[in-house]
Amino acid sequence: MAEGELKLLGLWYSPFVLRVRMMLEQKGLSYEYLEQDLSNKSELLLKHNPIYKKVPVLIHGNRVICESLAILEYIDENWSGTGPRVLPADPYKRAVSRFWAVYIDDKLLSSAIGILMAATEEVKAEKIKDTHTAFEMLEEAFKKCFSGKSFFGGETIGYLDVTLGSYLISIRAAERISESKLLDETMVPLLVEWENRFLAAECAKKTLPSVERVEEHARMLRRTRWEANSSN
Amino acid sequence: MAEGELKLLGLWYSPFVLRVRMMLEQKGLSYEYLEQDLSNKSELLLKHNPIYKKVPVLIHGNRVICESLAILEYIDENWSGTGPRVLPADPYKRAVSRFWAVYIDDKLLSSAIGILMAATEEVKAEKIKDTHTAFEMLEEAFKKCFSGKSFFGGETIGYLDVTLGSYLISIRAAERISESKLLDETMVPLLVEWENRFLAAECAKKTLPSVERVEEHARMLRRTRWEANSSN
Repeated sequence: MAEGELKLLGLWYSPFVLRVRMMLEQKGLSYEYLEQDLSNKSELLLKHNPIYKKVPVLIHGNRVICESLAILEYIDENWSGTGPRVLPADPYKRAVSRFWAVYIDDKLLSSAIGILMAATEEVKAEKIKDTHTAFEMLEEAFKKCFSGKSFFGGETIGYLDVTLGSYLISIRAAERISESKLLDETMVPLLVEWENRFLAAECAKKTLPSVERVEEHARMLRRTRWEANSSN
Repeated sequence: MAEGELKLLGLWYSPFVLRVRMMLEQKGLSYEYLEQDLSNKSELLLKHNPIYKKVPVLIHGNRVICESLAILEYIDENWSGTGPRVLPADPYKRAVSRFWAVYIDDKLLSSAIGILMAATEEVKAEKIKDTHTAFEMLEEAFKKCFSGKSFFGGETIGYLDVTLGSYLISIRAAERISESKLLDETMVPLLVEWENRFLAAECAKKTLPSVERVEEHARMLRRTRWEANSSN
């Protein structure tokens, strides 16, 4: 293990940051959290992630790790003997987990932002449909590939749980703003049961912001965007 | 290890497929290669990758693995005792490798396609600039994170070598079509030396198509695209 402190550069509402924070909690690793202002990027951020200038950035002694999924794998491998597993042990289950993690980031981020920022009702309806499809696919995967377990990670929260779980608050905020049901128990009952178990877990309770706070922030972002678009 | 044969659904010029083929060669694993026609998708492809309907798909007995980087990790983990390593052993080097693999796919695919399909000289010039920047970043990473070695993987070809190496033929074909230098030894001397070593290796020689063949195919795609765009 690399010597030295553990620091995380983050942003309070970012799903990419929240998944790392939840996994650090889950593993029982203590770290210093440094909230970043992306409108006025810190020297620390520019120095440690010069390529993308984005969060999360995990600093472990003299090691710097960027990209949230790579950070989760690093936590898995570097602290394999500490706390619960991050990824399953079986190579095939690991591959399936990685596939779905990429799927989640590919679909949910653009859907959630699309719903919040849609300029017309048609665009909004299309994005809502995409989100429903993504959740249906995930429900099917949960049933087929991770059947009979409490979490994607088995009996404890793992890699795919924090990856998907990091979007839950944004999705529930997007539901309120768009006045539409996105994660609907009549469509995806297993996922909604999983959500309840996930949100009741310590790592989620300690880390995730409230839906109200994310909703308020998203409404502010929407106003700012629309004002910018309607002035010359 | 799962029992059963190894099959790969592929497309002859796809970087995502080529990296998997090179790694299977590198590990000395024999497999059946099944070329796919993406304009008329096979039952096999639709059955095994219903989510994206894309190649590569690795079928290992009753296991199905999609997404090229997840396939490389699966090969690493499932055949860890066979042939050379895919990923480095050290967790930090693994994290750095995963970061750069995502960077390569993020930058090089859109740059290469952008250069080939650019509708105006301005767009082409911008995409060429992006490609130069990406290679400069990779040159810097090769020097800083993988210094003094023949390959990103050390003394043998590994995960990041096949990930970057899978684009080399497309990049050289894009140079000919765009009449511009993309991978330039005056700008990125270490990468060009790496390229020479990489292309001389057995796994590349056995697997990669010729620049001429990719160039011809790309010119055909360009004509088809432009004809489609100029008819109503």
